[in-house]
Amino acid sequence: MTDSPVLALAKDLISRQSVTPEDAGCQQLMIERLQALGFEIEVMVFEDTTNFWARRGSQAPLFAFAGHTDVVPAGPLDQWHTAPFEPTVIEGYLHGRGAADMKGSLACMIVAVERFIAEHPDHNGSLAFLITSDEEGPFINGTTRVVDTLMARDENIEMCIVGEPSSTHAVGDVVKNGRRGSMTGDLRVKGTQGHVAYPHLANNPVHQALPALSELATTKWDNGNDYFPPTSFQIPNLAAGTGASNVIPGEFDVQFNFRFSTELTDSEIKRRVHSTLDAHGLDYDLNWTLSGQPFLTDAGALLDAVVKGVSDVNHKAPDLLTTGGTSDGRFIAKMGGQVVELGPVNATIHKVNECVSIADLEKLTDMYQNILENVLA
Amino acid sequence: MTDSPVLALAKDLISRQSVTPEDAGCQQLMIERLQALGFEIEVMVFEDTTNFWARRGSQAPLFAFAGHTDVVPAGPLDQWHTAPFEPTVIEGYLHGRGAADMKGSLACMIVAVERFIAEHPDHNGSLAFLITSDEEGPFINGTTRVVDTLMARDENIEMCIVGEPSSTHAVGDVVKNGRRGSMTGDLRVKGTQGHVAYPHLANNPVHQALPALSELATTKWDNGNDYFPPTSFQIPNLAAGTGASNVIPGEFDVQFNFRFSTELTDSEIKRRVHSTLDAHGLDYDLNWTLSGQPFLTDAGALLDAVVKGVSDVNHKAPDLLTTGGTSDGRFIAKMGGQVVELGPVNATIHKVNECVSIADLEKLTDMYQNILENVLA
Repeated sequence: MTDSPVLALAKDLISRQSVTPEDAGCQQLMIERLQALGFEIEVMVFEDTTNFWARRGSQAPLFAFAGHTDVVPAGPLDQWHTAPFEPTVIEGYLHGRGAADMKGSLACMIVAVERFIAEHPDHNGSLAFLITSDEEGPFINGTTRVVDTLMARDENIEMCIVGEPSSTHAVGDVVKNGRRGSMTGDLRVKGTQGHVAYPHLANNPVHQALPALSELATTKWDNGNDYFPPTSFQIPNLAAGTGASNVIPGEFDVQFNFRFSTELTDSEIKRRVHSTLDAHGLDYDLNWTLSGQPFLTDAGALLDAVVKGVSDVNHKAPDLLTTGGTSDGRFIAKMGGQVVELGPVNATIHKVNECVSIADLEKLTDMYQNILENVLA
Repeated sequence: MTDSPVLALAKDLISRQSVTPEDAGCQQLMIERLQALGFEIEVMVFEDTTNFWARRGSQAPLFAFAGHTDVVPAGPLDQWHTAPFEPTVIEGYLHGRGAADMKGSLACMIVAVERFIAEHPDHNGSLAFLITSDEEGPFINGTTRVVDTLMARDENIEMCIVGEPSSTHAVGDVVKNGRRGSMTGDLRVKGTQGHVAYPHLANNPVHQALPALSELATTKWDNGNDYFPPTSFQIPNLAAGTGASNVIPGEFDVQFNFRFSTELTDSEIKRRVHSTLDAHGLDYDLNWTLSGQPFLTDAGALLDAVVKGVSDVNHKAPDLLTTGGTSDGRFIAKMGGQVVELGPVNATIHKVNECVSIADLEKLTDMYQNILENVLA
């Protein structure tokens, strides 16, 4: 039996070892298909990262598929049942690194666009692809720089489907119509080192900080809203001490991470944290790293099209959620348009034996095509 | 100028590189001097450690000098102004590792005893030495095992001077008539590891523990008493986290140390700590290590003799304190007798360029001799 167009392309992509920031020819494969459809191609190389922007048409609205050709490393090979870069079908599932995150989605996008253009060679608006090979890495030279380039020339994406694996049990059961913001604080509380036998000559920064940290950990930051769970504060790392049981440490390092809803801003969070630390009289340094602002795509043309596209295939509407980690959607959202994430089941992503249901890939292709019909036909 | 007997012996001891548990012949040097005075010598070797017990007389009361021949390592040699194991006199100070902690004291004890016996060959009671070479190390095979041996045969020291460097600015300004207890708790708070983006699927042990630790750190454990400062609680070490900013840790390790007064017992401290941890509903393991029980030598024959001995030389009474770290006095106190620590200024101990005032060594010899007169003449 011959592989379907989607399965064949997904296999072709998986067989290329494109561990971040390598692209390993994946983008060239996509570019050739898109050029054949009349897309204008713009390859954008930033430092070690290759990206491309492809556009067909010059009218509004500008609709784009966004995704990445890079994958995370295979991890321990002896735990894989198949070779991670040799795409293998086992009982209806395509196995291989990137099958679900997100070479499967890329194949669906290409085939959906081929079908759509065959039916609508003179579609409305413009159809585009924003593809990077730096989504799983430091995300410095990938989507964010392509977005900067586009914004600088006022070429703003109005509607965007990101192919991230949004689904939980079956493709389309969950669509992400936003993401929480993520911000990390690296706190160093300063005290005075000394001998535990002479506590009056020392100042234990752990003791100084405990009440403040306790307060931060029990604070209710907000109540979330219809789309976002309440903002969460977590301490992933903390450390103090020389290892000796008789030395009072001089410094205490604490790292905390906020996943925040659209009910809060990064500056409001910073203000409240500093206020708490100051109220407890701490001597400290605090460095903030904002990984992403929250974004939300509320009811509108894109969300309507996505819900219809998924429902037509699944006969069931998707759940609209904003949970989970960050994605490149946060960069695209800066352009002010609507961004929705729709992709395969994420159960095996970043794990050994990553795989995707072949039936889900066919459905996802249908969903993407249906969405195109809804917004550009 | 010929060295005085005390200076000569101190130099001879310092020149032997007796880093714990090495004795390097120091004890043999002392034994020869004591044998010449009619002491009966009992060398006690436990594992890697050499100790000796010397006794002159069989009557009560049994008075003993206690001390150690081992020293801490020299540390960075390039920061020493003199070779650490080549005793060197500079402007009235004897320099060398162990000069103050406590080979100087050992020399003073020997010379004081020689003088005392010359004047009182038929002194009252019994005079003894309990010397170890494992005070600066793990203190497993040193004083504690000699004490066990003596107790097993009901040979209990009734009065003991430990030669630890008790003084702050000039010899005899401070006498330690007790020591706080020391107990360490190694706490592991157990949670559930997870991704910071999905806090509802994890259970951060840091967050669980913070309120309990904050409470422990701000608890007033007791008010101390006439001789003891209030019991202190310190967290010298704590750590949690994988290093990744997006992983909620599954375990949180906290070490705390109590320095406790005679107002509390180790079992009462344990009870109160467990009660606090349990009240906060923590899932934890807690392992306790009792380094030493507190002891106190209150007004009595020995303390009177020491205060008089010091005052006669200094024309000023010593301060009686229980501050500072632990010492082998805690083991000797188990025998139920009186234990007092009197030795040189501790400003340079365990540091580079350790030194002791030669004038102080002469005074300390006079003090020790005076104390012997007070208790055994």
